Amino acid sequence: MIRLECDYAEGAHERVLRRLFETNLEQTPGYGEDLYCARAREYIQQLCQREGIDVHFLVGGTQTNTTVIAAALRPHQGVIAATSGHINVHETGAIEATGHKVLAVPSADGKLTGREVRRVYESHWQDATREHMVQPGMVYLSQPTENGTLYSLAELTDLWETCQDCGLFLFVDGARLGYGLMSEACDMTLPDLARRCDGFSIGGTKQGLLFGEALVLSHPALRRDFRYHIKQHGGLLAKGRLLGVQFCAILEDGLYFELARHADRLAMELRRAFETRGYEMLFDSYTNQQYPILPDGLLAQLEEEFALTVWSKVDGGHTAVRVCTSWATEPQAVQALIRALDRWEET
Amino acid sequence: MIRLECDYAEGAHERVLRRLFETNLEQTPGYGEDLYCARAREYIQQLCQREGIDVHFLVGGTQTNTTVIAAALRPHQGVIAATSGHINVHETGAIEATGHKVLAVPSADGKLTGREVRRVYESHWQDATREHMVQPGMVYLSQPTENGTLYSLAELTDLWETCQDCGLFLFVDGARLGYGLMSEACDMTLPDLARRCDGFSIGGTKQGLLFGEALVLSHPALRRDFRYHIKQHGGLLAKGRLLGVQFCAILEDGLYFELARHADRLAMELRRAFETRGYEMLFDSYTNQQYPILPDGLLAQLEEEFALTVWSKVDGGHTAVRVCTSWATEPQAVQALIRALDRWEET
Amino acid sequence: MIRLECDYAEGAHERVLRRLFETNLEQTPGYGEDLYCARAREYIQQLCQREGIDVHFLVGGTQTNTTVIAAALRPHQGVIAATSGHINVHETGAIEATGHKVLAVPSADGKLTGREVRRVYESHWQDATREHMVQPGMVYLSQPTENGTLYSLAELTDLWETCQDCGLFLFVDGARLGYGLMSEACDMTLPDLARRCDGFSIGGTKQGLLFGEALVLSHPALRRDFRYHIKQHGGLLAKGRLLGVQFCAILEDGLYFELARHADRLAMELRRAFETRGYEMLFDSYTNQQYPILPDGLLAQLEEEFALTVWSKVDGGHTAVRVCTSWATEPQAVQALIRALDRWEET
Amino acid sequence: MIRLECDYAEGAHERVLRRLFETNLEQTPGYGEDLYCARAREYIQQLCQREGIDVHFLVGGTQTNTTVIAAALRPHQGVIAATSGHINVHETGAIEATGHKVLAVPSADGKLTGREVRRVYESHWQDATREHMVQPGMVYLSQPTENGTLYSLAELTDLWETCQDCGLFLFVDGARLGYGLMSEACDMTLPDLARRCDGFSIGGTKQGLLFGEALVLSHPALRRDFRYHIKQHGGLLAKGRLLGVQFCAILEDGLYFELARHADRLAMELRRAFETRGYEMLFDSYTNQQYPILPDGLLAQLEEEFALTVWSKVDGGHTAVRVCTSWATEPQAVQALIRALDRWEET
Repeated sequence: MIRLECDYAEGAHERVLRRLFETNLEQTPGYGEDLYCARAREYIQQLCQREGIDVHFLVGGTQTNTTVIAAALRPHQGVIAATSGHINVHETGAIEATGHKVLAVPSADGKLTGREVRRVYESHWQDATREHMVQPGMVYLSQPTENGTLYSLAELTDLWETCQDCGLFLFVDGARLGYGLMSEACDMTLPDLARRCDGFSIGGTKQGLLFGEALVLSHPALRRDFRYHIKQHGGLLAKGRLLGVQFCAILEDGLYFELARHADRLAMELRRAFETRGYEMLFDSYTNQQYPILPDGLLAQLEEEFALTVWSKVDGGHTAVRVCTSWATEPQAVQALIRALDRWEET
Repeated sequence: MIRLECDYAEGAHERVLRRLFETNLEQTPGYGEDLYCARAREYIQQLCQREGIDVHFLVGGTQTNTTVIAAALRPHQGVIAATSGHINVHETGAIEATGHKVLAVPSADGKLTGREVRRVYESHWQDATREHMVQPGMVYLSQPTENGTLYSLAELTDLWETCQDCGLFLFVDGARLGYGLMSEACDMTLPDLARRCDGFSIGGTKQGLLFGEALVLSHPALRRDFRYHIKQHGGLLAKGRLLGVQFCAILEDGLYFELARHADRLAMELRRAFETRGYEMLFDSYTNQQYPILPDGLLAQLEEEFALTVWSKVDGGHTAVRVCTSWATEPQAVQALIRALDRWEET
Repeated sequence: MIRLECDYAEGAHERVLRRLFETNLEQTPGYGEDLYCARAREYIQQLCQREGIDVHFLVGGTQTNTTVIAAALRPHQGVIAATSGHINVHETGAIEATGHKVLAVPSADGKLTGREVRRVYESHWQDATREHMVQPGMVYLSQPTENGTLYSLAELTDLWETCQDCGLFLFVDGARLGYGLMSEACDMTLPDLARRCDGFSIGGTKQGLLFGEALVLSHPALRRDFRYHIKQHGGLLAKGRLLGVQFCAILEDGLYFELARHADRLAMELRRAFETRGYEMLFDSYTNQQYPILPDGLLAQLEEEFALTVWSKVDGGHTAVRVCTSWATEPQAVQALIRALDRWEET
Repeated sequence: MIRLECDYAEGAHERVLRRLFETNLEQTPGYGEDLYCARAREYIQQLCQREGIDVHFLVGGTQTNTTVIAAALRPHQGVIAATSGHINVHETGAIEATGHKVLAVPSADGKLTGREVRRVYESHWQDATREHMVQPGMVYLSQPTENGTLYSLAELTDLWETCQDCGLFLFVDGARLGYGLMSEACDMTLPDLARRCDGFSIGGTKQGLLFGEALVLSHPALRRDFRYHIKQHGGLLAKGRLLGVQFCAILEDGLYFELARHADRLAMELRRAFETRGYEMLFDSYTNQQYPILPDGLLAQLEEEFALTVWSKVDGGHTAVRVCTSWATEPQAVQALIRALDRWEET
């Protein structure tokens, strides 16, 4: 069985593991106050071309999103997100568990626009009974989105300027940020992003580490006392240096980006294979997640050999599935899937 | 200025105030453990034809909804409500502040159906990643809804049976319950309701009291330790007998229902006046809230004499407004509004 | 049975009720945006000799404490209080339910000192692992305390200066503020208090109103968006003018203070009666709550005629009880209790 | 610099890392639904001699404590703990952040007794105003405690029977459980523990893993829907098999216990070295954490060579410190510390 249903089926890139081995018996202070975390922090500051930013290292994505949103909002505020946003759907109400409403905005492709954000903001502030409603306090995006779609630099700039105008924090969930930045369709750089939001994450779990998310905070109000928030949310790893060591390993010479580009290329190869054979894609993704719409017969046949994620029933005879590549995907796995498509065509 | 924009512009029915005067210097135990609360509890049990139910008296509606929902749900559960439901829109995120997501279901008329509830339930339990999502634990309805619309007995029965099937609590917000039950279009009685939900409220604030909501709980799991929850949510009124005295005054001989019928009749008089003059209604309401769609010129003219609530822009030249009658509305106020419509027609 | 066990056994002062009657059928905007609330706000600003302060009217004390504390603290902060403080003992964990720890400081008399506050503050900030602990963010006092004891002006000034030094909010719970300020042992005025804290409440429920607490906020950070917080905590009374009308009635000519002085005088009469008969007092109270330590035989005899609150077992044969006077206490009730003491002496 | 200030200064036992290497490129399902977690679960069930228990694997201790306590308590309930308990002091209010009060009981040695638990329980239920107070719902212990002290089997049995009587959940935090069970002073086995609580954790982070806590749940009410709670609290590790692989490595042949015994022996060697040289111990610990009281001059000298944790000032000239051994401590490190003591004696 070849697993293409997610991008976290394997462990870590071999270099990451090797570094953990090499540093294993060193003694360091706990809770992220070690030299490896300091060094990884510097790498990220350099990559972002922003010296003054804070960088924290957390274990997982839900933890990262929850901690930053809970730290940012006052009790009567909520966070604007696309209806399909991870915080609105797949975090078991973690945001609400900290007391905050997700102000969900419907979106066909998983993206928000500056215009929609402004509409939510204005409809709140123009309402005479606004004190009876949750006040928007933050905007949450993913780059790339849950659907694999990408914000362009112009779209992000528009959102950022809107948030600045409206006094809203802007947070970008980068659980798959590398796959976004390395996409052939991406027109923004890491420094571009770092200058257009108040905070963002750089995902490690799905991009070659065993686990770990780097959280970059630039807005002073978000930075204040942030380690308390991490601890309260259970994210202050005792052996914090494990995160520092891993991020150092993958960032020191650009391995993070190289691995992401590899996954994106394989994903686009798959996309083209589906499209040239006449299958439509549910979302217009140029990143490592692809969403072909398949006849149910084909799907059944593929599932004998491949693990895929069933995404949604499209009609009586067709189903959209998610196919993921990752830093660990072998080109042979992609070739095998394409051959399986061909076999189906022949029958 | 004649106020028809809400149903809480005046104080209380004269009998309610008189009873507060008569009992004013009596000394009673605090926090609802007095004889007036006991007597009001009995009235409600008799009216519901259910002896075993618990009845608590709280001050306001947001408090009542929040307390019962927070007491009912486990931390990973959410409450299903119509998108327009009061808890989803007009309680400043009070439900989320207790840690729970409102699972909002779009609804044109403000009502939910058993089919929709079952769909939410099944789509949760059939999802392989359901542990990553909020589990439905309760259904929240209003009778009548925010839009003045009513559930029929058949619709409520369907919802109740669905909830029983699915293991979901059913709670009915009756902030305007009297106006619902006394409507010419209502085919259910209070005992009908009391047998088709796990808990419901009987609104006093908008129905002739100074303030106060009676909360009826029948499900044993909701009843357990409930006074702790009331206290934690700031709802255990020190002089609890104020609630008991008021509910006794309005329930002892059916005054509550008589006042509601009065308001409904005036509201239907208004509805017919709008409709016979060719104005469409935004919602099909048979209760004390009516939502005519008016030309903006007419609205501007009416607003010189009447306080109305602007509900929504319908198109470039029309606006839907809310017009409310209440237990306190004078027939002359309604006549004055109708005359103003006629004056507009003549111009 | 004569009730002296609490100060909320009756309704309201007759003038308060009369004003509710007189204004009953006036139509006003809801939620505290009416002329009566505006006028009561002005009375309070004048009494405090501070024009710039905000004044909100809430229904009850737990609600008031919870709302202001939750609005003031960031998620990782807690509130310093005496172990016996109302928020630590008698609010069913309402503060914790909003996510915040009460940092309880043991206190024999129910009071905190500036030195203790500074110690909590410094022991936090000097701890290398402080990020693993709740950060002090606010100090909560009651004037008078749960035990009837009073802060002197010098003590309050010391606390205020400490809080200013440490960057801590200072909130004073004045559920019985009138009984404090009118005490023969009190050396501070309302303007003194208003200049030495960031917020405080003026209790109405226990001081002649049916219900209601005025919340005075002076710190800009507490004032911002405060009505949202009130609504979220269920405290935005639909007919908010009921609070305004009541506070106007009792504040317009000093009735509030006159009633408090009446209660304090009767309480001191009781205290002297106990002391001259050789009974010790558990706390050194000069306000309307007195805590005599009684032989169990005497207590049993008193309880046939009087409702008192059992406070704590002192030893095998003695019990401390709370005896309360209030705005409504008749001098005859106090005389009856003193006669009962004499009868016991004679046996 | 030799680090003896904590038991998480190094990475993991070499076998643990090797297993991560060996399994690194295997593809497994995520979120703990893999074969390694299943196998580790079986090991633990066998070691506990209880087949029916649930076992979950989480990343850290604060996360584990918070998740199980929040899942267990209803909103009006709190958790009884020693004042020095980890959840009361060193989790930045994580328990309160989920809405629950820690009902702290003072304790000289960090332990609770059945009698104290019963007293808290009875004083709650015997109070006429108990609805105004937090209801005890759970008892939280650590074995060993923060102070290194141990519950005997008789003490645990007494606590368990008390909790059963009172309807309280009993949860045992075993962040250092191995160091407890392997202590020369411990008279209980893992099966003994597993039959005397509703849930407990088996710490990995401080006992030879990179990170990871195994959470054992036996009470059906705690087990229900537990994975939702883990996810909501950010504890459902995407590559959950990392936890399974590590726990398999350390449990398969008793390595976990062997490493703990090693640390305990070195700790007792240190204790005896301190005691024979006349230094008193702050706590009577027989586990891997020792708390000698040292002259400040000695402490200053030791700190040039060793990292120790300053615990508390004992008097003007003495300080209690924490000295930890762990699975990774070399006997040479302990010898070096003892030699340093001798050098101090000679001066």
